[in-house]
Amino acid sequence: MAIFFTPGPAQLYPTFEKHLKTFVDQSLGSISHRSQTYRDLHAFTVSQLRQLLHIPDTHAVLFLGSASEAWERILLSTVKERSFHLVNGSFSKKFYQYALAAGKNPAKLEKAAGEGFDAAEISLPEGTELLCITHNETSTGVQVPVETIHRLKKMNPGTMIAVDMVSSAPYAALDYSLVDTAFFSVQKAFGLPAGLGVWIVGEQCLDKALHLKNEEKLMIGAHHDLPTLWKNAEKNETPATPNVMLIYLLGKIAEDMNRYGIERLRRDTEEKAGLLYQFAENTAGFAPFVREESARSQTVAVLNTDQASSEIIGRLKEKGLVVGSGYGEFKNNQIRIANFPATDRAQIEQLISELANK
Amino acid sequence: MAIFFTPGPAQLYPTFEKHLKTFVDQSLGSISHRSQTYRDLHAFTVSQLRQLLHIPDTHAVLFLGSASEAWERILLSTVKERSFHLVNGSFSKKFYQYALAAGKNPAKLEKAAGEGFDAAEISLPEGTELLCITHNETSTGVQVPVETIHRLKKMNPGTMIAVDMVSSAPYAALDYSLVDTAFFSVQKAFGLPAGLGVWIVGEQCLDKALHLKNEEKLMIGAHHDLPTLWKNAEKNETPATPNVMLIYLLGKIAEDMNRYGIERLRRDTEEKAGLLYQFAENTAGFAPFVREESARSQTVAVLNTDQASSEIIGRLKEKGLVVGSGYGEFKNNQIRIANFPATDRAQIEQLISELANK
Repeated sequence: MAIFFTPGPAQLYPTFEKHLKTFVDQSLGSISHRSQTYRDLHAFTVSQLRQLLHIPDTHAVLFLGSASEAWERILLSTVKERSFHLVNGSFSKKFYQYALAAGKNPAKLEKAAGEGFDAAEISLPEGTELLCITHNETSTGVQVPVETIHRLKKMNPGTMIAVDMVSSAPYAALDYSLVDTAFFSVQKAFGLPAGLGVWIVGEQCLDKALHLKNEEKLMIGAHHDLPTLWKNAEKNETPATPNVMLIYLLGKIAEDMNRYGIERLRRDTEEKAGLLYQFAENTAGFAPFVREESARSQTVAVLNTDQASSEIIGRLKEKGLVVGSGYGEFKNNQIRIANFPATDRAQIEQLISELANK
Repeated sequence: MAIFFTPGPAQLYPTFEKHLKTFVDQSLGSISHRSQTYRDLHAFTVSQLRQLLHIPDTHAVLFLGSASEAWERILLSTVKERSFHLVNGSFSKKFYQYALAAGKNPAKLEKAAGEGFDAAEISLPEGTELLCITHNETSTGVQVPVETIHRLKKMNPGTMIAVDMVSSAPYAALDYSLVDTAFFSVQKAFGLPAGLGVWIVGEQCLDKALHLKNEEKLMIGAHHDLPTLWKNAEKNETPATPNVMLIYLLGKIAEDMNRYGIERLRRDTEEKAGLLYQFAENTAGFAPFVREESARSQTVAVLNTDQASSEIIGRLKEKGLVVGSGYGEFKNNQIRIANFPATDRAQIEQLISELANK
């Protein structure tokens, strides 16, 4: 079977099939979402995620249909009229565009594709309510180091910070005393099929949502509005019928990751990323797209290719190795390689050896 | 293994496991949602649903996270300030409450639980933009006959009509020349795990959404707004990474249903419902909750019980038969029995025989 190094949907986690079989064998697809069986399942997944990502009790762990849904819900819940966005690729730009569509008068600092951000260069306009940061820009392979994110919060304590870690959780070691809200989806580094977004959200966001609704009389959403999600989460339930299958599978895979150890998993990630960038730097015909080393993504490596990327992709495919093309304008002269926990060091080495084998 | 007669999540469709195995074996959980493989899969599901539900080309078939999400998206897309709701139970009431939360000044005609609606008694306030009808009220087992829905549109041609058929699709034989938009979720009569909503929506709704956005400058949503969903659907894609697994499974089960024949499936449903209501009418200790025969749901039968329903539910459970309790205030003196295609006549007869065997 092919190995997927695509940046989402991606290779499924090695234990996915085993857990799926348990889900089916136990008829979990038919249980009531208002039953104790469901509440226990829900609580298990939340507790495994809390352990894995070090999420404190000040923050709720909520389930949405996708991470894109989180963009909207965060903007509706925490912003009256002023969000600010660090934009350096397609997905950070989409967060900004969602703010435009939601009527939140967003401002932005935009960098060229492939460039990172420095905390020192970012000064927020007076009254900025929310700063939106994409920890890992899946389109260009640029990462904002977590230290930069934490420093930005310390520099701007009165502004809430939202972190898109769609393609970097659980690698992103965020300190939730400095991050008001963050979110990811499961089809990236958790190695699951798509269809579930996870929204980590602090009490201060809930307070703001209630203020916007009750004092400012703003529409904060009818479906999946934060106060209703929060109230249900306190009972280990969801407002609507949840995606029980993916919530169950996410809990089991988070448990597997906890058993393996998050520090070890993060170290593995960095080692595998190191191999990929080293290869690209030392091999004619390839180069890391992101020049600044500290801005290089550890979870999605984007490489420039001299040869048309479609030819490389086709050649790898014959060997059962699937990598992603460049995104948008870079489609034909870049490849994107997901470096998620579902692919191990030996598989990354196999990929590198085939890439080298021109 | 237990048989689930619960009204959602419900018994999984008999072919669910087979199709799930194919999904896993073909690595469909890892394919790109911007690939031709995905577009073909998406197109297949849409075409099977069009055939099954007789959906014309004037209407798009869109995918959401749940039917509850459809409530919100319909209200944001089609209503400036005036929706009207037929309320006769918890789910029709939620549609109304979503309209309140979305700031759409909803009006309603509310009936006591267990009562149906007559087209003649419904007169809409001047300027009503959207009439919201719950075809099958899952909480109370009341059905609004499709003839009533069609008549209401003919009586009010200037008002759009939205039909919640969450727990009645594909049984509900709607005429989409008279229904502007309708929606359902897959964990009811399609026998799938929860996590996917299907939104059927006509061109006139798209026109209205564009009018509200461009002329009225209203916020029609940033995530899953109708114009963006529509544009992507024309390419057999979705704006965000879709729930490929459930979209695939839905297409395969719709295909199975098409092979069986929708007319035959609807006839089966009515025959099985007839057996359940006949039993309740003729057996001491039971009675159909809905008195008026034409208002009795064909897909979710709600029965009053003299005995505490928890005792009946417990007794059935020992036999491997799972039925639902009453909803809300009726929890202890009603049972709810899903009559979906996943449970056949023999299984309904087995349930009836155990119910009778006090």
